[in-house]
Amino acid sequence: DSSLKVFTLNSNPRLAEEIAANIGVELGKSSVTKFSDGEIQINIEESIRGCDVYVVQSTCEPVNQHIMELLIMIDALKRASAKSINIVMPYYGYARQDRKARAREPITAKLVADLLQTAGASRAITLDLHAPQIQGFFNIPVDQLVGVPILSSYWSKKGLDDIVVVSPDHGGVTRARNLADRLKAPIAIIDKRRPRPNVAEVMNIVGNIEGKTAILIDDIIDTAGTITLGANALIDSGAKAVYACCTHPVLSGPAIERIQNSKIEELVVTNSIPLKEEKLIDKITQLSVAPLISEAIIRVHERQSVSILFD
Amino acid sequence: DSSLKVFTLNSNPRLAEEIAANIGVELGKSSVTKFSDGEIQINIEESIRGCDVYVVQSTCEPVNQHIMELLIMIDALKRASAKSINIVMPYYGYARQDRKARAREPITAKLVADLLQTAGASRAITLDLHAPQIQGFFNIPVDQLVGVPILSSYWSKKGLDDIVVVSPDHGGVTRARNLADRLKAPIAIIDKRRPRPNVAEVMNIVGNIEGKTAILIDDIIDTAGTITLGANALIDSGAKAVYACCTHPVLSGPAIERIQNSKIEELVVTNSIPLKEEKLIDKITQLSVAPLISEAIIRVHERQSVSILFD
Ligand SMILES: Nc1ncnc2c1ncn2[C@@H]1O[C@H](COP(=O)(O)O)[C@@H](O)[C@H]1O
Ligand SMILES: Nc1ncnc2c1ncn2[C@@H]1O[C@H](COP(=O)(O)O)[C@@H](O)[C@H]1O
Repeated sequence: DSSLKVFTLNSNPRLAEEIAANIGVELGKSSVTKFSDGEIQINIEESIRGCDVYVVQSTCEPVNQHIMELLIMIDALKRASAKSINIVMPYYGYARQDRKARAREPITAKLVADLLQTAGASRAITLDLHAPQIQGFFNIPVDQLVGVPILSSYWSKKGLDDIVVVSPDHGGVTRARNLADRLKAPIAIIDKRRPRPNVAEVMNIVGNIEGKTAILIDDIIDTAGTITLGANALIDSGAKAVYACCTHPVLSGPAIERIQNSKIEELVVTNSIPLKEEKLIDKITQLSVAPLISEAIIRVHERQSVSILFD
Repeated sequence: DSSLKVFTLNSNPRLAEEIAANIGVELGKSSVTKFSDGEIQINIEESIRGCDVYVVQSTCEPVNQHIMELLIMIDALKRASAKSINIVMPYYGYARQDRKARAREPITAKLVADLLQTAGASRAITLDLHAPQIQGFFNIPVDQLVGVPILSSYWSKKGLDDIVVVSPDHGGVTRARNLADRLKAPIAIIDKRRPRPNVAEVMNIVGNIEGKTAILIDDIIDTAGTITLGANALIDSGAKAVYACCTHPVLSGPAIERIQNSKIEELVVTNSIPLKEEKLIDKITQLSVAPLISEAIIRVHERQSVSILFD
């Protein structure tokens, strides 16, 4: 059988190292640097002819840099005769630009899918895509891994009592239901609506949270406005305590300050996006997706179904 | 006939304004900003349905940002029913990565051509591509404009005496010959070679420069090593004075300091890449390519040949 190689780019090298260690291979030798004028220079420092290559890259900030690194790496691997080029994208940047919400908007999530295929990707392994429809933007196989089991194991071990799982908006109810099933808990929904244009939003809570421990869940936490306002609304409406979790900790702009000042006791995230030191505040717990992704890579390489990992 | 619209992105807005003014249209209304997490947000603020759209973008530093802006803009224009999407790239980033010079290198200049077409570009207008072969990387029409006439007019007006046009390396002799023809001057070549590995390069000058005024010409000046060492070698070998010119002033890293400290009297460049204030030192003269590009756009729009502009 052809041999398996794992390469990393610059977005998430520690996750890539963990993945390689779990699989039992060394990370492929390569360097990704910049020329004096800022153009990306990639050197692949070992033969990959005929190999199944897995490239780990989260397209988190700086997103354009990370996308171009990935595209150029795919081009180099293709020209170096890789047998297959499997891109492992724990975080898929531009996923929220997945439809025309207004006239003359781009659909950048589809553009990125097209670019990856044009460069020469043979398969993608992703984690909690913002919308499952993004899978359909590709014409190559896409495995969509799911982060809820990792989050739910953590909460189970923590042993909180009298839990209610809360979706911070209408779009996340399925995800909340999924976590609630695993924790054998009921769900509630924060039902935001604007009574009239230019009037402040009203936060109405659908479901019983009185005296309960709420666990908010979302896929992405970016500026943390939704989640922190939601947490405070839950406390104001009688919840005993509020915890929160998400798969992708984008945490841009005012996010850390908002979380720090909010009524959230603890925020649990994964390492799909690495957190710089200044973001690793005491309230945040980061769980590794390396075991999940390594298992998926091994199963793909051995031509086994990965759907078992979705459970 | 369908109407002509000119849009700018963030790399070269002043050149785009000059081009629009020359053509006699207003710049198309759009904004290119960033979301909190660094993802690009593009808003096209007027209808472009059925229009021939020209998008001006040099993919200079930050190159990856500027490439993604262009790709996302093309995607938005395509989905907004533009009749044709004509990309005007006065500077084409990654042009030097146009071949595999070593094993397992990417060919990023080809990748970028593929990405632009995948996004939906119908035609490209370029200026002094580093290698003319890059035209062949595209499957859409590419007009290659030439900067030498602009540079040669400047030198003619300046009225230097007893000129010799010098190519700083073997690769640029055709360009030097082209400028020399226009100035009715002879050429010389700086013939670098390394006698043995790990021994310093020797600069040998082929051609007569004794007592003459040398004009060095290159397409791109990046870190300015080649051009400043060449200038000093010319003076050491008996040239009376040294001037220099290029189309694309990348001027990264130590470039400005090297030029300042070199024996170059004056460096003439174009505005294919805008120069930040700190790079606009007295020794540098910047000429506009707006008249050339506007003329090319008008000719393309009126279905006339642009080959007359190559003379
Ligand atoms: N990086 C981003 N940051 C904030 N908003 C975004 C970003 N990308 C896209 N959007 C907007 O977010 C909306 C989609 O978010 P959602 O409704 O959660 O799927 C769209 O209206 C987009 O214009
Ligand atoms: N942005 C860049 N800065 C410096 N060198 C580069 C850059 N891009 C490519 N190169 C290298 O420059 C060489 C091509 O330059 P040239 O011989 O002038 O065509 C190749 O060996 C490339 O690896």
